[in-house]
Amino acid sequence: MATPRTPDSTRRSERSRRAIFDAALELVGEVGYDKLTIEGIAARAGVGKQTIYRWWPSKAAVLLDAFTADAGDYEAGLPDTGDLAADLRFVLRASVDEFNDPKFQAPYRALAAAGANDAELSADFVARLMEPGIKVYTDRLRAARDQGQVAEDADLRVAAEMLLGPFSQRWLMRTGPLTYEFTDTLVDLVVRAVARR
Amino acid sequence: MATPRTPDSTRRSERSRRAIFDAALELVGEVGYDKLTIEGIAARAGVGKQTIYRWWPSKAAVLLDAFTADAGDYEAGLPDTGDLAADLRFVLRASVDEFNDPKFQAPYRALAAAGANDAELSADFVARLMEPGIKVYTDRLRAARDQGQVAEDADLRVAAEMLLGPFSQRWLMRTGPLTYEFTDTLVDLVVRAVARR
Repeated sequence: MATPRTPDSTRRSERSRRAIFDAALELVGEVGYDKLTIEGIAARAGVGKQTIYRWWPSKAAVLLDAFTADAGDYEAGLPDTGDLAADLRFVLRASVDEFNDPKFQAPYRALAAAGANDAELSADFVARLMEPGIKVYTDRLRAARDQGQVAEDADLRVAAEMLLGPFSQRWLMRTGPLTYEFTDTLVDLVVRAVARR
Repeated sequence: MATPRTPDSTRRSERSRRAIFDAALELVGEVGYDKLTIEGIAARAGVGKQTIYRWWPSKAAVLLDAFTADAGDYEAGLPDTGDLAADLRFVLRASVDEFNDPKFQAPYRALAAAGANDAELSADFVARLMEPGIKVYTDRLRAARDQGQVAEDADLRVAAEMLLGPFSQRWLMRTGPLTYEFTDTLVDLVVRAVARR
C-alpha cells in the first residue's frame, strides 16, 4: 500500500512549526526567558507573529511545545533488558551527554531558571517535562519490583527522585561535574537502597 | 572578669550591617534578583549607598553575606548521637520547616534562580551556601563510617547529594511537597544505600 501523501499545506505548517521551535530554543538560550518575545521568535523563524499567536497563547507555551517535540526519547518507557542497574546506567549516561551539550543546555537552563521564580510557568514545566521524566524511572523500578528485584515496600517515586534530583542539582547549580562516573555511582547507590533484603 | 565593652562605632556598624542584610533579603524576595539594586537596598535600610559600597562590591556580595549570616546553624557540623538515621531525620525535618517558611523562601528562591543563569553568581552561591551544606552531611556520613555503620566503599559525597538533591528539586521546581514523610523516606533509602553489607 502506498503511504498517503501529506497535503502541501500540512507540510508547510510542519516546516513553520519546526522553524518556530528552533528559533524559540535558540533565542531563549541567547537572551534568557525574560527578554524572549513572540516578535523575536517570529523574526528569527521568518514568519509573521500572527502565525505564532494562531497556534500558541504565550512564549511559555511555544517553548514547552518545542521541548516536548524534542523530548520524545523515552515516551515508550525506559529500556527493560531485565537488568535494572544496566538499564539505568545506560539511560543516565545518555542524559549526561545530552545535558553537557551546549545546544540543549542553554534553552533548558533559561526555562528552568525562569520556572524557579514563576510558579505558573514552573507548574507547566514540571507537568510537561519533569513529571514524565520521573514517571518513566518510577515505572522502570516498578517493573523491577514485579520481577522480584526490588523490595515490596520501597518508595519507588522517591527512589526515582534520588536518581534525578542529584543529577538536576549538579547540572542546574553546577555543584559538580556531570560524568558517567557520577551517574554510575548514583545508580549503584539507588539499586542498593531499593534492593530486596 | 568583665566583658569588654564594644565601642559605640562597632555597635553602630553591626546595626547597619543587620539592617542592610534584612533590607536585601526582603527586597530580593519582593522584586527578584534582576531588579534588585544597591540604591534600593540602601533606601530600605535607611543608609547611604556609599555605606554599602564601602563594604561590598556588588548586590550579589551583599546577598551572599546576608544568607551566610543567617545560615550558621550547623557550622559545627550535624548532631551526632550515634544514630545516623535519627540525626539525619532530625536535621532534614528542621530544613523542611525552614524551606516552607515564606520569609526564608522568597529571597533564597530569587538567588537560586539568578544563579541558574549566571555562572559567576552560581559559583559564589555554591561555594558559600551549597558546598558547606553538602560537606556537613558528608562529614556526618563519614563519622558513621568510622563508627562501623556505613560500608567502607560507599561514595559519601554522592550519598549526601542523594539527600539534598531531591530536597532541592522538590523545593525549587515544586515537583512535590516538602514534608517530614518525604525527608524521612529519603533518609531511610540513603541509610540503606550506604549500609554495611
